[in-house]
Amino acid sequence: MYHSFRSTKEAHMPDFGTGSASPNLGKAESDVGIVGPVAGFAPQIGVLVSMMAFIRVQLLNCVKGMSVGDLDFLLDPNANTIGAVLLHLAATESYYQLNTFERMEWGSWPEAIRREWDVAMNLGEPARQTIRGNSLDYYLSTLDGVREKTLSEFQKRDDNWLAIVDRDWGWNNHAKWFHVAEHESNHNGQFKFLKTRIGKP
Amino acid sequence: MYHSFRSTKEAHMPDFGTGSASPNLGKAESDVGIVGPVAGFAPQIGVLVSMMAFIRVQLLNCVKGMSVGDLDFLLDPNANTIGAVLLHLAATESYYQLNTFERMEWGSWPEAIRREWDVAMNLGEPARQTIRGNSLDYYLSTLDGVREKTLSEFQKRDDNWLAIVDRDWGWNNHAKWFHVAEHESNHNGQFKFLKTRIGKP
Repeated sequence: MYHSFRSTKEAHMPDFGTGSASPNLGKAESDVGIVGPVAGFAPQIGVLVSMMAFIRVQLLNCVKGMSVGDLDFLLDPNANTIGAVLLHLAATESYYQLNTFERMEWGSWPEAIRREWDVAMNLGEPARQTIRGNSLDYYLSTLDGVREKTLSEFQKRDDNWLAIVDRDWGWNNHAKWFHVAEHESNHNGQFKFLKTRIGKP
Repeated sequence: MYHSFRSTKEAHMPDFGTGSASPNLGKAESDVGIVGPVAGFAPQIGVLVSMMAFIRVQLLNCVKGMSVGDLDFLLDPNANTIGAVLLHLAATESYYQLNTFERMEWGSWPEAIRREWDVAMNLGEPARQTIRGNSLDYYLSTLDGVREKTLSEFQKRDDNWLAIVDRDWGWNNHAKWFHVAEHESNHNGQFKFLKTRIGKP
């Protein structure tokens, strides 16, 4: 469908086509250009799921085929690697799961959870030193596992839940999950920038 | 509201607080942490408006206080300046206006429109050579003027319009406008990256 558009040179649209084995999108990858309700989810949650899918396929396309060296590339001593930021995306989504699904206050995570995710969440020097040497499959299966959990929890909830406001933040659950989506796009913009600097098209 | 959360060191949330004079958000800036319907717009269009506002305030906060030198900073000979990419965001939104509101085929823009936007749209060397020396106010008022038009056109439409599918693209209007929003987040990720490299906090 959208492939015909991609061939239009002047077109401005994201690259789709992940080439990866069935990512957890909550919907068919072939249908990812349709933002709207998705079967199996409450209407507004479905729209959000379709947006998250729209961004995820772009991310998958951007990193497709990257080697360990690509994923460990550091543009300068203060930069983060693409690999570490992929794990940062998984960490972010995991923490928003705890905050919104388990209603845990931000940062009040159990020690085991902190050990799993804090380095990726906080990036910087600890991440540069420890998150390296991993294959693309490792990062993508981590992201996919976290997304699977998100989608599974979304299926249990309705649109009233999405509208619940966290009075301390001034955000509702809709804003929190929209942020998870656009945060992925935010970092994908950095990936695209870095990608051209490691000689990738 | 969200300021209390921003003071939590470990929190992961975007910086809000644009400090700019009343940007066109379609809603109150103080309410930007609530994603949902917005008065004056059809329900789904309102949700989209609130998402676009959520991203716009982060962008405004990111570039707040930037000098002409900051906006013209080039990380390397192939990079784009923040100034040029701000204009690229305005160009993108303008072209999506023509494509979705005026139903013009992508790229079939009148010559006057091309002259106004093509350099910013396409970035690269022509943009590096010609988009420079402009103040932040210039870029922000351009973005704001384009957004004003978007919001004004949104007000005239309903959610059925949002669901209309462009068969050539395989995208509906909802996907197109969601892309305009997340595309801004995508480039804002690059701005954040560049900002730390010009010594900005």
